[in-house]
Amino acid sequence: MNNICIIGAGSSGVTVAKSLRDKGLTFDMFEKGSDIGGMWRYENDNGQSSCYASLHIDTSRPNLGYSDFPIDPSLPDFLSHAQFLRHLEAYADANHIRPLVTFNTEVTAVTPKGEGWEVTLSTGETRDYAQVIVANGHLSDPRTPEFAGQFDGPQTHSHHYRTAAPFEGQRVLVVGLGNSAVDIAVDLARRAAHVTVSTRRSAWIMPKYLMGVPIDQWSGFLVRRMKLPVTWARRVMARLIRLGQGDQRRFGLPRPAHPMWREHATLSQELLPYIGHGYIDVKPDVAELRGGKVAFTDDSEAPYDAIIYATGYNITFPFLNKDVFDPGEDAGNLYRRMVSPAHPGLIFAGLVQPVGPTIPLVETQGKWIASLLAGEVALPDRQGMLQEIAEHREKQRRTYLGTARYVLEVDYSHYTKQMKGDMARQA
Amino acid sequence: MNNICIIGAGSSGVTVAKSLRDKGLTFDMFEKGSDIGGMWRYENDNGQSSCYASLHIDTSRPNLGYSDFPIDPSLPDFLSHAQFLRHLEAYADANHIRPLVTFNTEVTAVTPKGEGWEVTLSTGETRDYAQVIVANGHLSDPRTPEFAGQFDGPQTHSHHYRTAAPFEGQRVLVVGLGNSAVDIAVDLARRAAHVTVSTRRSAWIMPKYLMGVPIDQWSGFLVRRMKLPVTWARRVMARLIRLGQGDQRRFGLPRPAHPMWREHATLSQELLPYIGHGYIDVKPDVAELRGGKVAFTDDSEAPYDAIIYATGYNITFPFLNKDVFDPGEDAGNLYRRMVSPAHPGLIFAGLVQPVGPTIPLVETQGKWIASLLAGEVALPDRQGMLQEIAEHREKQRRTYLGTARYVLEVDYSHYTKQMKGDMARQA
Repeated sequence: MNNICIIGAGSSGVTVAKSLRDKGLTFDMFEKGSDIGGMWRYENDNGQSSCYASLHIDTSRPNLGYSDFPIDPSLPDFLSHAQFLRHLEAYADANHIRPLVTFNTEVTAVTPKGEGWEVTLSTGETRDYAQVIVANGHLSDPRTPEFAGQFDGPQTHSHHYRTAAPFEGQRVLVVGLGNSAVDIAVDLARRAAHVTVSTRRSAWIMPKYLMGVPIDQWSGFLVRRMKLPVTWARRVMARLIRLGQGDQRRFGLPRPAHPMWREHATLSQELLPYIGHGYIDVKPDVAELRGGKVAFTDDSEAPYDAIIYATGYNITFPFLNKDVFDPGEDAGNLYRRMVSPAHPGLIFAGLVQPVGPTIPLVETQGKWIASLLAGEVALPDRQGMLQEIAEHREKQRRTYLGTARYVLEVDYSHYTKQMKGDMARQA
Repeated sequence: MNNICIIGAGSSGVTVAKSLRDKGLTFDMFEKGSDIGGMWRYENDNGQSSCYASLHIDTSRPNLGYSDFPIDPSLPDFLSHAQFLRHLEAYADANHIRPLVTFNTEVTAVTPKGEGWEVTLSTGETRDYAQVIVANGHLSDPRTPEFAGQFDGPQTHSHHYRTAAPFEGQRVLVVGLGNSAVDIAVDLARRAAHVTVSTRRSAWIMPKYLMGVPIDQWSGFLVRRMKLPVTWARRVMARLIRLGQGDQRRFGLPRPAHPMWREHATLSQELLPYIGHGYIDVKPDVAELRGGKVAFTDDSEAPYDAIIYATGYNITFPFLNKDVFDPGEDAGNLYRRMVSPAHPGLIFAGLVQPVGPTIPLVETQGKWIASLLAGEVALPDRQGMLQEIAEHREKQRRTYLGTARYVLEVDYSHYTKQMKGDMARQA
């Protein structure tokens, strides 16, 4: 009888399982769908994937691999979802993870029981565990804004967007200016009659390449190789971005009120040039839906055939009762972004939105969790955990914008250093 | 009875007609199709247009308008073919050109008769003219390379490419690395399973934007505003291009053996990033077609479902007998790139491939032709014309590559200055 349960066999679950296995820990692992891959499996039969056909990961290849399982260097700078899935599958298979997963089995409830947890499965079965690791992602409950008025045409959320085909020849409004919004607007550009992106407070647009080199390799180069302080490196990069893509205001995209580094930037190589080719135009926030038209807060109005809301996700874990874990309150209040201070046997993997690459960050989370469960890393007492959380929230407030969107924001380097420090101290 | 004949009502014919009309000259004008626009009319029923659905003109808006008819500044930097056609139609209508065109009437033969020409129409009618202005373009007779072996799948020329739809999910080989080749490869990228571009001797790739400003506005800025000598301006731009898009070798695109300015560059914002996303890869020349596969000169081989030859056009004028005008010999041997020295009543408009914008250059050609026919510009004697041609060819050889592809190459500024000089001298 294993006393550890892992929920979800996406990229987070797989790397956590691998680290647990490396420590000789055994576990049960449940996946709603029929195979591993989570959001990286296009049209995953677990119904949770928001992957669209043209999705490419925005971490460049050298920054993307697992520490002991690098990516084939003959692959391109930015892998497609299919290429990344193949890599994840190879990593899982090299570590014998697939046979450890119970597929087609959803976790429907996780309730405290004594010192541990009772886990209810979609089969009706219940099992008891000391620890539950929640690794099923936070990008599957679409968040949609409420606008005044009514719209006649189809409205969908980016979560359900797959290809531009249904929008052939249509006038499409994409609400949002995050990575999905811009990716989808660009994907639509050559097939839709016209695409508008509507943005409430704009965003900093960064190219995926700077001087022909993936932008995520620049920060490493400037900070680690050139030994520039982070603030200097950011200033250099802001200049290079300005040199590379110019001033986004020239394309009708306002500069956000906040400085460039205070949010998760929107990466796009094509958005600005596609505005310059007339494929895409930019509008402020929606004021009202008006039948076949949409009015914007600048008093302009335009006709649309369809609306796509690329407005992000609610963080929800339907199998957790709100008095045990209320995502709105608690998702941002985890010790080391992983452990519930109220219920230390409840551990979250991948519940972060890093400035920096997600995949290797969650690998480090997996190692940290394995060290914790192997007794090599100790948790502070509840007071200690709450204090660490308070310090993190304070730093987060100083660094990023204070909105709900940024509650999961972490800095890759700083956070990695923290986790590695914990592991080194106790080794 | 008019004694001037204009063949073709595309962008060249229309601006020539406008200039003739401004000088009070009357003319007959024949167009094979049912409307004006030539290659800018998508699926033109004259069967001559190579316009594809995603075509955008690569001259930016401020450099594109006619001198007395600028383009609506609310239009984007780079107009779509449809936007440019609407502009051309407005220009033609403001100048009352359409009623002067005989539509649905092809010129089938132009033969010398006495001092002038006998023009035969598709109606069977013949008419006599003193001057014939050939303005029907030089991009309608596809040139296709002969490769060893046989290919099983469909093969087409870029001339017939319209949209990516027929290539959905296919592996497509695009032969060539000119503007059409790269435009089509990018257009296919998101719908084909994979796209390869094959290039014999590579090409310099330039972005359409440099620091967020259309690249064709930089040369004007550096030369006219900053008063830099042309060679310095080119050096500055080469540096800026390197800063903006990086080294194309990083993307597997060899640097051509010739310096950047010795050819008509290939403009593409997406090619290098799309190689970096794995949408497109680059191969050297085709060695052999092998059924469902193609072998390249680097000894690699890959399977393809379709081949598109974006390998340019033969210059042909089927209505002109070769002993009157042999395009292979004579197209590059015209006085001021317009007048046949052997037959001074035979005048070509738009038979140039400028480094710089075509539309305003042909407008100046139209004015020059109108001045010539109004008797305000005089032709030198045949010896003088041949000498001017020899000097031009010598300069062309020094400036551009010596291949057939560059026989029509002219430098926008230098050539404009020459034509304006002629007109000023005689005014």
